[in-house]
Amino acid sequence: MINSNPTFKKIDLSYQPLPGSKKVYLKGNIFSDIQVPFRQIFHNNGELLNLYDTSGPYTDPKDEINISKGLKSLRAKWILDRGDVEYADEKKKILRAKADSNVTQFHYAKKSVVTPEMEFIAIREGCTPEFVRDEVAGGRAFIPANINHPESEPMIIGRNFLTKINANIGNSAVSSSVCEEVEKMIWATRWGADTVMDLSTGPNIHETREWILRNSPVPIGTVPIYQALEKVKGKPEDLTWEIFKETLIEQAEQGVDYFTIHAGVLLKNISLSSKRLTGIVSRGGAVLSKWCTIHNKENFLYTHFEEICELLKQYDIGISLGDGLRPGSISDANDEAQFAELKVLGELVKIAWAHDVQAIIEGPGHIPLHLIKENMDKQIEFCHGAPFYTLGPLTTDIAPGYDHITSAIGAAMIGWYGTAMLCYVTPKEHLGLPDKSDVKEGMIAYKIAAHAADLAKGHKNAQKWDRAISRARFNFNWQDHFNLSLDPQKAKDFHDQTLPDDKSKKDRFCSMCGPDFCSMKVSHDLRDIAKNCPKK
Amino acid sequence: MINSNPTFKKIDLSYQPLPGSKKVYLKGNIFSDIQVPFRQIFHNNGELLNLYDTSGPYTDPKDEINISKGLKSLRAKWILDRGDVEYADEKKKILRAKADSNVTQFHYAKKSVVTPEMEFIAIREGCTPEFVRDEVAGGRAFIPANINHPESEPMIIGRNFLTKINANIGNSAVSSSVCEEVEKMIWATRWGADTVMDLSTGPNIHETREWILRNSPVPIGTVPIYQALEKVKGKPEDLTWEIFKETLIEQAEQGVDYFTIHAGVLLKNISLSSKRLTGIVSRGGAVLSKWCTIHNKENFLYTHFEEICELLKQYDIGISLGDGLRPGSISDANDEAQFAELKVLGELVKIAWAHDVQAIIEGPGHIPLHLIKENMDKQIEFCHGAPFYTLGPLTTDIAPGYDHITSAIGAAMIGWYGTAMLCYVTPKEHLGLPDKSDVKEGMIAYKIAAHAADLAKGHKNAQKWDRAISRARFNFNWQDHFNLSLDPQKAKDFHDQTLPDDKSKKDRFCSMCGPDFCSMKVSHDLRDIAKNCPKK
Repeated sequence: MINSNPTFKKIDLSYQPLPGSKKVYLKGNIFSDIQVPFRQIFHNNGELLNLYDTSGPYTDPKDEINISKGLKSLRAKWILDRGDVEYADEKKKILRAKADSNVTQFHYAKKSVVTPEMEFIAIREGCTPEFVRDEVAGGRAFIPANINHPESEPMIIGRNFLTKINANIGNSAVSSSVCEEVEKMIWATRWGADTVMDLSTGPNIHETREWILRNSPVPIGTVPIYQALEKVKGKPEDLTWEIFKETLIEQAEQGVDYFTIHAGVLLKNISLSSKRLTGIVSRGGAVLSKWCTIHNKENFLYTHFEEICELLKQYDIGISLGDGLRPGSISDANDEAQFAELKVLGELVKIAWAHDVQAIIEGPGHIPLHLIKENMDKQIEFCHGAPFYTLGPLTTDIAPGYDHITSAIGAAMIGWYGTAMLCYVTPKEHLGLPDKSDVKEGMIAYKIAAHAADLAKGHKNAQKWDRAISRARFNFNWQDHFNLSLDPQKAKDFHDQTLPDDKSKKDRFCSMCGPDFCSMKVSHDLRDIAKNCPKK
Repeated sequence: MINSNPTFKKIDLSYQPLPGSKKVYLKGNIFSDIQVPFRQIFHNNGELLNLYDTSGPYTDPKDEINISKGLKSLRAKWILDRGDVEYADEKKKILRAKADSNVTQFHYAKKSVVTPEMEFIAIREGCTPEFVRDEVAGGRAFIPANINHPESEPMIIGRNFLTKINANIGNSAVSSSVCEEVEKMIWATRWGADTVMDLSTGPNIHETREWILRNSPVPIGTVPIYQALEKVKGKPEDLTWEIFKETLIEQAEQGVDYFTIHAGVLLKNISLSSKRLTGIVSRGGAVLSKWCTIHNKENFLYTHFEEICELLKQYDIGISLGDGLRPGSISDANDEAQFAELKVLGELVKIAWAHDVQAIIEGPGHIPLHLIKENMDKQIEFCHGAPFYTLGPLTTDIAPGYDHITSAIGAAMIGWYGTAMLCYVTPKEHLGLPDKSDVKEGMIAYKIAAHAADLAKGHKNAQKWDRAISRARFNFNWQDHFNLSLDPQKAKDFHDQTLPDDKSKKDRFCSMCGPDFCSMKVSHDLRDIAKNCPKK
């Protein structure tokens, strides 16, 4: 199927590395075939700074990209070498675990094995492979790595690592095409997306996901209930465990790295949402609540949770325990419905762990500043230290059109408190499906939030970056200042709006203050005076 | 002079109220001539929401605006009726206090007087006039209200009121014109600026300020050392107390409501900045440090501080104690230089208070998340509860071009902790002088930060707004949803990008989820099911 779609010629593959950067690779020590990518920024004075790089082969001019073929299978050899997988379908090269095998990174970690994935991550994060292994073994960190998605570059989600960002893409019944979604995925990783969730709900769900997976350098997550619902023509009451299970297998074989599963929506807790201003705002949560209510039966994801785990460990798919009852407005924040569900998620994470299935916990949504910490504290307490993965949170409801900002505020704060991955929110949230420009705006806002959190957590690599750019700023190295910024082209364009000529790149001022009022220039004068003065 | 400038025809005065809003006025109880403006939003269901409104007559179609004439003198009668002022220049109608009179709101408050300004503020804020008076009398709040700026609508800056926002405008030697600056001032107040600082440093400083003041419905602040420096042709070493004092009087007579004065930069503390990555980043701080260093003398603003207070109480000008040694990078945050100066500001605020001169304390700048609270705590401790006024703070240095976001994160947090006024940062910060579009982006980001802080502080009026918009969202009242948002046109435009027809304004979904996947629609279905079920 991959080779047959001519529309993919439309995708822009002309991306170069960001200005002033080049792609470099660091080698493994334990596993000599490991090549860990970094964005290397070269400074005026010859110094170099290596930054974590999520953009994959798309920013390496040496790599030839062919969307119809998909990316190289970076992890294929590592997966096969472990000797615990077999072909479920040899023609299609679909892998699953051998009978009685468990192929999760969690399982290896618990057995004290350091995998190539773990060493790859250790080099990216600047820690030891053993530290990666121990965080995974303790359930505090999660490596999304389906054996059928060998194209992805290993990464980790855990509070003792760099704060990660997920970008949601996906079409709906009324908007977007397969082609646009693949382009959004590449675009999101260019701006720092650590994982991408394909939330497509319209037609072509399977095909869209296939193209995304084969071309994605980052792990891909989905919400399988969306596709299951399409299979029953949008009628929640017609959903069955069998249809859902069939959907899980379909997606597992394609290579999805983690599934959001709303197994914590319990029949007894649904009515707790009836007092709310904005009811249930999770799509999965709403669908399952309707199913439970109409049938007056317990959520089939909850009753079949052990079977789900049995299935997932055959592919190493992680579970993202969905918060189907998350609050959708400031008014509903931290309510009984939310925390009742969070306790159930804490039960479920223990079951997942008993199967050596990796798990993370999803969190809200909309929370005023003063209630954010309670979310983090309760999550750690109820969910036994499993990684937290929040949507924002938005700190006010009044700014549709700017929810990347309302939520970056909450995201930075909850990231500092310990959330391991932040799900971005784009400016289009609550208004429509994001386009490519919205994806970039959302990504930049979340890179800021995640990096601010990393600084506050005292991450050494994060601090280096701020020091480098501020040194460039103080020394009027304008070109370094642009190159070291999150969005080099935009920084340069803004500067050049008032001082466009090349000469001004050497000026010891900018248009904000002009030549006489530049405090940094005066600071340098002062240092010169101090240097030339005899010591008193 | 005001009537002679034909270029002002270029200023766009066609502003209507924001969509779905109209200007309404609430009357005073104590003072019957008080008319307090609000932005009233009318909902689909007939409900009304009154929001705090900073935009002045520019959003009232009944008001005729003539930039050449300036705004009406709203406060003139109140000022004259107190009987404690006289004309310094009768032809130019310049007022100052009669000999031995003190005309500050602080002075009246200490004498238990409730002024019309205080009742005006009480109606805006939703509290009693006595509460306003007591907060001012205690030094915890500040009413910027120069008797020569009667055009301004009274407002208050204090941690027990709504969090305020200042917008910086002003030209530099290399950019912008008088006309553009007046337009930016009007534009900033349209988007919620509570005060505006004119930071012009180029030619035409006096003229620019005059046009801004005569047309501004909000208090205007300046940094007088900028104009003093222009008078000595940009050479800090040539500054004298006499030139500075002459500048203060010039600006006092024009009507500037508050002055940033860097009196806390002491000779002994300057060298503390020499260890820093980015030295001194305050323009005023740099200029005064250079003066002190070259002359090896104590800062003349410090040695003449009592005289400054004597002068300011004749006009009711507040002092904003500038943080000349504020850190300019994450690396320099919360350092010895900063806190040494903050202690000096604490001494100075006591001197100002002894003169019944109102004062606020300026704060940084660049602070990582985990060090923000220490700033607020130390400010309260060192400065005896005087209001805090911070620039951001930026929570990382790596995102020039997006510093409205890096700093909105810090601003929301420090606002929640108790900062009374947030100085906005625009996307152009560190790169160039902001234009009109940057002013709007900065304002919206800061309205979000200030409102998020107000929600977290439990402000009832703030909560009402979020409840109203979320109710509209849940009920698919799209038009209300747009009208109740910070930027109604943008919200509507974003929605209409994918669903432009009028019919879709009545749809019970948007393009994010499409008709089958809307969780809010399912929530309504669930409530209908619950309603139709016999009680169990």
